[in-house]
This record gives sequence, C-alpha cells and structure tokens, in this order.
Amino acid sequence: MPYFDAASSAPLHPVARQALTASLDEGWADPARLYREGRRARLLLDAAREAAADAVGCRPDELSFTSSGTRAVHSGTAGALAARRRVGDHLIVSAVEHSSVLHSAEAHAAGGGAVTEVAVDRGGAVAPDAFAAALREDTALACLQSANHEVGTEQPVAEVAARCRAAGVPLLVDAAQSLPWGAVDGEWSLLTGSAHKWGGPAGVGLLVVRKGVRFAPQGPADERESGRAAGFENIPAIVAAAASLRAVRAEAAAEGARLRELTERIRARVPGLVPDVEVVGDPVRRLPHLVTFSCLYVDGETLLHELDRAGFSVSSGSSCTSSTLTPSHVLRAMGVLSEGNVRVSLPVGTEAAEVERFLDMLPGAVAEVRRRLGAPSVAPGAREESASLVVDALGKRCPIPVIELAKVIGDVPVGGTVTVLADDEAARLDIPAWCEMRGQEYVGERPADHGAAYVVRRSS
Amino acid sequence: MPYFDAASSAPLHPVARQALTASLDEGWADPARLYREGRRARLLLDAAREAAADAVGCRPDELSFTSSGTRAVHSGTAGALAARRRVGDHLIVSAVEHSSVLHSAEAHAAGGGAVTEVAVDRGGAVAPDAFAAALREDTALACLQSANHEVGTEQPVAEVAARCRAAGVPLLVDAAQSLPWGAVDGEWSLLTGSAHKWGGPAGVGLLVVRKGVRFAPQGPADERESGRAAGFENIPAIVAAAASLRAVRAEAAAEGARLRELTERIRARVPGLVPDVEVVGDPVRRLPHLVTFSCLYVDGETLLHELDRAGFSVSSGSSCTSSTLTPSHVLRAMGVLSEGNVRVSLPVGTEAAEVERFLDMLPGAVAEVRRRLGAPSVAPGAREESASLVVDALGKRCPIPVIELAKVIGDVPVGGTVTVLADDEAARLDIPAWCEMRGQEYVGERPADHGAAYVVRRSS
Repeated sequence: MPYFDAASSAPLHPVARQALTASLDEGWADPARLYREGRRARLLLDAAREAAADAVGCRPDELSFTSSGTRAVHSGTAGALAARRRVGDHLIVSAVEHSSVLHSAEAHAAGGGAVTEVAVDRGGAVAPDAFAAALREDTALACLQSANHEVGTEQPVAEVAARCRAAGVPLLVDAAQSLPWGAVDGEWSLLTGSAHKWGGPAGVGLLVVRKGVRFAPQGPADERESGRAAGFENIPAIVAAAASLRAVRAEAAAEGARLRELTERIRARVPGLVPDVEVVGDPVRRLPHLVTFSCLYVDGETLLHELDRAGFSVSSGSSCTSSTLTPSHVLRAMGVLSEGNVRVSLPVGTEAAEVERFLDMLPGAVAEVRRRLGAPSVAPGAREESASLVVDALGKRCPIPVIELAKVIGDVPVGGTVTVLADDEAARLDIPAWCEMRGQEYVGERPADHGAAYVVRRSS
Repeated sequence: MPYFDAASSAPLHPVARQALTASLDEGWADPARLYREGRRARLLLDAAREAAADAVGCRPDELSFTSSGTRAVHSGTAGALAARRRVGDHLIVSAVEHSSVLHSAEAHAAGGGAVTEVAVDRGGAVAPDAFAAALREDTALACLQSANHEVGTEQPVAEVAARCRAAGVPLLVDAAQSLPWGAVDGEWSLLTGSAHKWGGPAGVGLLVVRKGVRFAPQGPADERESGRAAGFENIPAIVAAAASLRAVRAEAAAEGARLRELTERIRARVPGLVPDVEVVGDPVRRLPHLVTFSCLYVDGETLLHELDRAGFSVSSGSSCTSSTLTPSHVLRAMGVLSEGNVRVSLPVGTEAAEVERFLDMLPGAVAEVRRRLGAPSVAPGAREESASLVVDALGKRCPIPVIELAKVIGDVPVGGTVTVLADDEAARLDIPAWCEMRGQEYVGERPADHGAAYVVRRSS
C-alpha cells in the first residue's frame, strides 16, 4: 500500500524508532536538574544538539529544539521582528511560503506591521532581483523557503541571502522540505525545520539563530532552550530526530538520485498517459522526491478517493480538498491549474515498482472521475455557432465550471466569446489556466450579481 | 537508586511506553488527511482525546492537546485574557503559582495589563475570601493551581471557582500536579495539565476550555486542535499520555493512600532525626506523594550533591540551586525557611524500604554539610555579652548569613540586638524564618550601603 505523501509527514525512520525507544529510559528527567537522571538527560540533549547542528551547518549554541516546525517559524519570525522593531516593521515573504510563515505574516499585519509578498514565476520560484527590490529601509525581516512544499521548486536562497545581507536585513529560511537532502547554502540568518519531514518523530522542530543576529523571544519568559522554546524538553523525541537526520543525510546523495529518477518518470510520462494534464513546478531546480500535476476536468477530492481505493496515498492542492474550499495559495501564486491537483512525494525507500503501478493505475482513475463528471472527451468540433455564449455555473464547484466552458467553446466561432458565471474560488485560477493550456484567449473577469463573470475568446 | 523527584518529571509509565511504541506505526501520518494513514492517525487521536477528557471530566471537544503543560498555560491565559479584553485587563494569580503562570502574568503586565497576586498563608494556601476580594469589575481572568508543585498544598479550588463564577470571572486551574490523583472539583472554566507529570511522555500538555467560556487564540493562526495549539500533532505521544493517565487513575486511590503513608513518615520523623528542621506545606490538605522540609544552616546545593552521592534524587527551592540565586517564590510567599530546602516527591511504586533508607541516611548528610559550613551545633549559651552586635555577612551566600547570626545571638543579652549585613536575597526570607523557628524577635530590615541590614532582638 504505497504511501506517497512524505512531504506531509514521513513514516518514522527505523533509526529514529530505535533511538526513541532506547532513550525512553534515560531521557525522561529534567535536564536542568543536577542529580544523575538529570545529568543523563542533559548529556543526551547536548549530543542531539551537536548532531543536529552538524547536519544544519551551524554551531550547537545557535540551535534550539522547538515543539514543531510550525512553532519554530512562529517563534523565529516573532523574535526576529521584535528585535529589529527600531529599524522598522516591514516583513517580506514569498507568495508560496508554508502556511506557518504566511500566518505569521498575517499576525504581524494584524498587529499593524507592513508585509510585502514577493511574487513567483510560473515554475514557483522567486527572482532574486524581484526579492531584492522589495527590501526597504524599514525592512525588519525577510522569509524565503529553501524549497516549496507543494511543487518541489527550489528557491534561489543563496542569491537572496546575499542581497539581504548587503541590505543588512536578516533572512529566515524555512528549510522544512529540503533539510533531509542537505544543508542550506548561503549566508542566511535564521533557519527552521521539522523532524517528522525527515523521518523523525512529531513534536520536534528546530530554530537556528546565527550568532550576531538580533533576536528577542516573544511571549512569556521560559528559561529552556535559550529562552526560544518554552516548555519541558522532549528529549527522547529530540534524540530520535537528530539520529534520523544523520541517517537520512548519510543516504541523501544516493537516495536523492534514485528518487529523482522515479519522480522524473512521473513528470515525463504522466502527460502522455493522461490527456489534459499540466505538470507544475520547476523541472530542474527541484526536490528529488516530489512531483505535482493537475488534471483538467477532475474533482481533486474524488480523484484522491479513487487513488486511496487503489492503495495510493497522495495529497492535493485542489479547492475541494481544503477546508476553506479555496485552491492552494501556491498554485494560485504560480497561476497554474489547480483542479484535479495531485502531489506525489516519495518517502525514502520507495520502490520503482510502486511508481510503475501508480503510472499504470492513474489513467484509469482519472478517466473514471471525468466520466462521472461528464467531462468533454473530444476537442471542440464544428457545431452550430453563435458569436457569444453565457454559461451559468453558479453554485457549481470545481471542476464543473471549467468542464462547462470546455463543452461549449466549440459552439462559438473563432473570435467569439464564452462568458462563465461562477462563484467557486477555484474558477478564478482554473479558467485562465485552462485558456493557457488550450491556447484560448482569457479576456478577463468582471463582477457579476453573484460570483464573477469570466470571459474567454475562442482563438482556434 | 531511588528517584524522589516525580514532581519535576515522572519516569515513563510502562503503559505509556507500550502505547507509545505500539502507536509509532499507526500514528505518524497527518490526521487531517483523508487517505488511510491519515484516517488511522485521526482514529488514534480521537480515542486519546476521549480518554483524556473522561479523566479530566470534560467533553472531548473542550480538550486540546498542546506541546507541553507550559504551552497550555501560556496559550490558555493569553486566549482567555484576549477574549475578555472588553471587560478589562485585570488578571488574578496566587503568589505560589507555577512559573509558567507567573511568567504569563509578567508578560500580561509588560503589555500594560493589571495583575493582582493573592497572598498565601504559612501553609501555602490561599483563603477563598482573600481571593474573592481581589475580584474587580475589570477582572478578565483568575488563575489558581489545584495543588502546589513545591510544597504539595492543595488549594481550595472549588470554593474559589464558586466565587469567581458568582462574579462572572473565568477561573483557569493549573492542575499539573494533581491530575494523576483525580479530577479537579468545582466549576472551573479552563484547566491545564502536563503528561510527563503523570508518567506520560514529554511533549504533551492539555488545555481544556469549557463550552461557553470565551476564548480567542493568540499568535499566528493554525487550524489544528481547534486553533488552540499550533503545530503538527504528536499522536504517538498523545496516545501514550492518555493511556498512562487512565492507568495511573486506576491505581490512584490505593497508590495515593500508600504514598501518603510514606510521606507522612517523612513529615513525622524528619524533625526528630535532624535538628533545626522546618517541615513546610499543609500537613493535611496536600498531595499524597510530596513532602518538603528546610534545614537551618545548610547549603541546599551541597546537600543535594550529598544526597545524590548517596543515591537519592531530590530537588530544592533553595537560592543556591536556582540559576537566579533567589529562593523559590513559593517558599518566599509562604514566609518559611528556604535554606537547606529539600522536596521529596515519590513516583508511583516507590517502596517503603527506599523511604526508610532515605530517613537513615538524611541525618548524616545534613550533619556533614553543617560541619563543613561551621554551623553552630549547640544553642546559644552564656558568653561575654554586649547590648548589640553587627555581623558583616556581605558577599556571603545562603546559609552563611543565618549561620553567622546563630553563632553570635548568644553574645548579646536578652533584649539586645544583632544586626546582620547581607546582600544575599535568601537572607530576607531566612533570617525572619530563623527568628520564627528559634523564638527570637525579628525587628525588621533597613537599607544599607550594600545589601540590607536585618535586625534581630534576642528574646530568650
């Protein structure tokens, strides 16, 4: 039963399990105490910190263990922003950061701070020049992920770090997705990570603050972890996290190359196996184990259920799979199709045969979902034509508005328009993306009584 | 090698270990995902929440798992205060709360809020009337622990909760120390706990917010745990925490009675075995497993080392054992002796023979520390007397100022005074406490060029 969602959470690495169970007997006491149980716990904690720091490429006293990657981001951004309050209250983030970064930015804005979101290209990457252009006199902090969690695109961290350094602005790098594969290059100032992304247990994140970077922990005082992570240390989990990071790093070069070949197969073959698919994310500068594609005329949630029934666990950035019924902010920022979105992220050790089975099964699963939705199976042909048509898709959820558009585009002459009335958020992203994929002209959007009216001109 | 510091952290309960290792294979996936690994994780999380809620005496949807007891307190106080901002910004805490509560209060005050600390009696308990008298029109929240972590005294939570309810003020109960022994009585509004205090793993706290209690989570948004605990859930640890809470509760009545008899032995026999000892905390309304005493003329850190060498792990509220070199705020609030302080907290399963060995060994250990410090071994006798003496103990740390005082009190006539010059924080607490124990009159304190001058009049 292949699990292909390592980017959400990786199964516990055997080394992590071993380290965790081995340290349950020695790591439960308070490491701040002077008696022998406390001293033993302290030794374990110190050793784990040294191992983790070595893997990150920092000094042990620069690294604090937090209770999660999310907490590391929340504490890291808050502490860095507060320490530079006198410089200003401007925060820069890329538009495709993890929700923990964007929610920190929202909290900062709610408190009166200024936030600039730097746009990304269609591949999901920021341009260093564009990022640098957002730097201001009053910029307190900039945040850039090392690689994107939804599409795998690597960001130009070293280049952006150099620009930030030149401007005297600290850069916080959310390295949650890339840390299993290697240290983050460049002169970043703060870095965050999450152990359960590299096969460590849940409950362990890390926050690195380079020496010389100003930092003022926020919230009630707490003496543990240099005052940067409140609460009793979870030492067995920390030991397991550090041990599994070392273990995955030891295999990272070989395993990364192997998984890159497997994700490359998916990237290369899915467009041939499944009609009307867009593979998204940078094809070259990308994480080795992750590939994402979107399928036109497909309901993401139904497709995930089909794949789950077939034994494959994947995730999706489609609106129907989110609690807010909006498409993933990452796909939206990239301007790519969000409907029928599938993210495959292979855990360490995934067999080639499992990927082959996935590729065998996928076309049938997509076809089945499209059949149920009544998606158009042929290109628009010559039918009775009128110069313009209006399609009422109000109240219809993704992918129905796009399916309705595709059904009637052949009914208008070249040069004629189809106007789609829709109130589903995904339509705003997916109708332009469909035009791009189909070579039709997206004219634009205007408000309507309910939802919006999306106008498409037939070009071919 | 007896470990007598369960109040800091209890060794992992066998049931917790079993539940933890058993759920490592099923509990690592994201419970928000719809595929089978996610569904399994969700089932485990739901079952653990039901078990924990049952033990606490609340509805499952009132209980969130946090990453520690400290986080539960920080989030609980912040969320409750923010939700009642329109009522006012007044916070009430007892003077003997855990540092996580007092640090939350400090953060609240630093943000412009008002804080009232309710005093305790010499036994460590608040008086319900005194607590109620602190309630104001603009009181947003009141906090009272269920039992004290340093001296074991139980607080009158039900009475205080009734007063708060009558005033329309929510009461947050830090139940970290008492939850292993039973649910908290009374109509409290919020409650916090910490799993590693009941033999669960570190990394799990709980925050209960009763239905109808206004609550506004602070910090960046996060959808997990009803928005009350940011970060990926640590499900294996949560499962283990809930399982061990059930397990210790099943044994709580019998084990509590057994341990109460053992701590009663210590309470009753230590004053006879060791001269000049003060047993502190309420002798009746107290936790079953915890007993605390202070030894005159003893350096707490040296005594802890002696006990550790003899194989006993205990903790201390003496100034020399704290990083800030100030005596425990609990002992200070109670006005009891802080020097040579020893807290014994017995883990579940402690054998009577271990306690007997402790009682056998203690007198020698205390005598050895006193011998090294040159403490007076006899009561003040008739020596050459002058009407008043000044003792310069500047630069001397606890317990030296008290030892110097004790050495010369016999050198002044009855009615004469000894003035001790000291700059050690502990002297402010311990000189009055010594007077109380010795039946001498504490006249008072006045500022001096360095530190303070403490004046004692010989009464007998």
